[in-house]
Amino acid sequence: MRKLRAEQFGLTRKVDYGSPEQNETAARIVEAVRTEGDAALLRYTEQLDRVQVDAAGLRVTEEEIQAAYDRVDADFLTAIRQAAANIRAFHEKQLRQSWVDVQPDGTMLGQLLRPLKRVGVYVPGGKAAYPSSVLMNVIPAQVAGVPEIVMVTPPATGGKTGIDPYILVAAAEAGVKEMYRVGGAQAIAALAYGTETIPPVDKICGPGNIYVALAKRAVFGVVAIDSIAGPSEIVVLADETADPAYVAADLLSQAEHDEMASAILVTASEALADAVATEVEQQLSTLPREGTARQSIEGYGAILLAETMDEAIAAVNRMAPEHLEIMTAEPMTLLGRIENAGAIFVGPYSSEPVGDYFAGPNHILPTNGTARFSSPVNVDDFVKKSSLIYYSKDALMANGDQIIALARHEGLEAHARAIEIRLERER
Amino acid sequence: MRKLRAEQFGLTRKVDYGSPEQNETAARIVEAVRTEGDAALLRYTEQLDRVQVDAAGLRVTEEEIQAAYDRVDADFLTAIRQAAANIRAFHEKQLRQSWVDVQPDGTMLGQLLRPLKRVGVYVPGGKAAYPSSVLMNVIPAQVAGVPEIVMVTPPATGGKTGIDPYILVAAAEAGVKEMYRVGGAQAIAALAYGTETIPPVDKICGPGNIYVALAKRAVFGVVAIDSIAGPSEIVVLADETADPAYVAADLLSQAEHDEMASAILVTASEALADAVATEVEQQLSTLPREGTARQSIEGYGAILLAETMDEAIAAVNRMAPEHLEIMTAEPMTLLGRIENAGAIFVGPYSSEPVGDYFAGPNHILPTNGTARFSSPVNVDDFVKKSSLIYYSKDALMANGDQIIALARHEGLEAHARAIEIRLERER
Repeated sequence: MRKLRAEQFGLTRKVDYGSPEQNETAARIVEAVRTEGDAALLRYTEQLDRVQVDAAGLRVTEEEIQAAYDRVDADFLTAIRQAAANIRAFHEKQLRQSWVDVQPDGTMLGQLLRPLKRVGVYVPGGKAAYPSSVLMNVIPAQVAGVPEIVMVTPPATGGKTGIDPYILVAAAEAGVKEMYRVGGAQAIAALAYGTETIPPVDKICGPGNIYVALAKRAVFGVVAIDSIAGPSEIVVLADETADPAYVAADLLSQAEHDEMASAILVTASEALADAVATEVEQQLSTLPREGTARQSIEGYGAILLAETMDEAIAAVNRMAPEHLEIMTAEPMTLLGRIENAGAIFVGPYSSEPVGDYFAGPNHILPTNGTARFSSPVNVDDFVKKSSLIYYSKDALMANGDQIIALARHEGLEAHARAIEIRLERER
Repeated sequence: MRKLRAEQFGLTRKVDYGSPEQNETAARIVEAVRTEGDAALLRYTEQLDRVQVDAAGLRVTEEEIQAAYDRVDADFLTAIRQAAANIRAFHEKQLRQSWVDVQPDGTMLGQLLRPLKRVGVYVPGGKAAYPSSVLMNVIPAQVAGVPEIVMVTPPATGGKTGIDPYILVAAAEAGVKEMYRVGGAQAIAALAYGTETIPPVDKICGPGNIYVALAKRAVFGVVAIDSIAGPSEIVVLADETADPAYVAADLLSQAEHDEMASAILVTASEALADAVATEVEQQLSTLPREGTARQSIEGYGAILLAETMDEAIAAVNRMAPEHLEIMTAEPMTLLGRIENAGAIFVGPYSSEPVGDYFAGPNHILPTNGTARFSSPVNVDDFVKKSSLIYYSKDALMANGDQIIALARHEGLEAHARAIEIRLERER
């Protein structure tokens, strides 16, 4: 791995907004589904996914879901059920209550918190279809209380209408009852605007290819969308007490994701830096996805050498990594100094896959430096707030004049009069 | 006002994404400021705002802020201070704590909640400059604990560098210490990318013209942005016990905002409908902004007649209004049935200006039906979360095999090995 000085290093890759042609294609598909409904949905499914299906066949049947259970192996089912239980338990701790503040003059002010009514989860097809991601998108919505959660996913097998049984089982275990075999920009448009077969949703989540991302961007405002994920990143902050083999293994677990994934060690220990570089090379050569991992390590991997731990921490905060592992002598003592990171894995046993699959916290995290201002997927993402304002007669009589003064200052006379008419009649 | 049947009525106006030319202009300005910094910022300020200012003159001085205090009247100062105190008190109740769940096997999982570091608030110039909106954007960020809050606003007076003293005083009262006289797409670009004079921020809030909105859209992902506000809306849900004069006055307080504002009464009482229509006409004719209010009422105003209160409530939920007033015999009993509304004003004394200026809840609310999935501006908008994952050795040894099973199923061998190497060495 290349070694760089930590002091100036930042991690910012450009956000991919697609080419003008890609944007045009996504917009055309969205518009067709918006105006033509099912007809366009089926046409694009035939054209792009090379699968013929009629409107009645879009919805995945109860029988298919049952059949999927017969095809997944028992170990998988046990593990995904435990993972789902852990994810549910962690997200349930995030649940919040509506509240109201009752004041002595009778006034009541508060926030009503309610779940969104209907949420659509996009699950990509092919090798990017991860059962764990289905859990991570669906369970927070379910914990929030969203009554209708619908999954869309493209038919996975060329020419056939089938869907990966592991995806179906993960969705069913997470509690999804409504699933459609449709993908791409056309599926996003169907979720946003609704068709004869698929009722519209309030929010769309889940990753997809560039056309899915551009379609989500195009329907933003009509529905809510989640953030658009960039390539995955890990930063390991370590000192001489860290095991170089563990550090290397964790870096490689990111690097195997894709060629643009980024795996970075930040350390003030040159000895650790050298040992990790050696370990990475050794472990890399035995990986089934060696090619992908090697391209990632060469293109976006690095060992950043800092003069001091302070400088190392500053580099971490500048990068605002999606995943941060801390493997130092006393990792908990550094926690307060980490300003920006999506998920923080503390100590030698908190290897990133622990969080990717199992522990409970969400694995959908802010990428590309956005941990500066955004958060892991969480229950709040599926809750909307309404302000509650009950002003008593006493309160209005006492404060009306000040409200009138502010309204008149802004030149909004009708605002002033809406208060004044009440003061005149009832004071 | 036109009377319509409530049963089918929905309220959706198209989101304005600007013309291709407007998008190109905004993109060109953003790119120039990104690459040239202050030079482009000053050039566009001269070209678009017709104000000459050098880099050293961009920042509003302490003396200007003091001078502004001498120019605002005492009633305004008293009222804005009380409003600020009320807004602060309401938002302080929203503050949440980081939490950690400590499990018997030593595992600790949690969420760290921290404020964003630096937030930029855009305040439009001219007649759209509302001191109340300055409070509504700044105070939630301040309550969240954001240490650096910066305001940008265009020089307000043609050819002069001055800024409306009421805006300066509102910002100072809300606690802003850093203000720049710069507006338009160039100000948004400066906040997103930073220039020699203006350091970059993590999030940009506040309304502006179409170029400001398009520039915010263009920098989305580099920084966070707030939602893009549409025209203002009010729906009044009322029965025969409501005072038609109050209803009419409240409808008009929305209508005066702009020609595209929407003011709608929903009722099952034909008598109330007729009385409100008469009152609206009477009150309208005496308003200083009669022209604007009349266009709004004629273009986007309506009285929706429902057969029953159930049908009326269904219509409200379909519209998902920004502001909802409930003036019925027992308004609190209807609260649970209102699914979608930005702010809910309950009873005859909770006239909308109470919330616009004074009570404490935020007046920046989801418009255009987006209350289905989004919320008033609140403290959470300025807080980011990081997941905390500390897995103990015991926990890893107990659960490692399940994590490996899930990773191998997804074909991510390096993920599996990152766990396996620890199990092999330490089990």
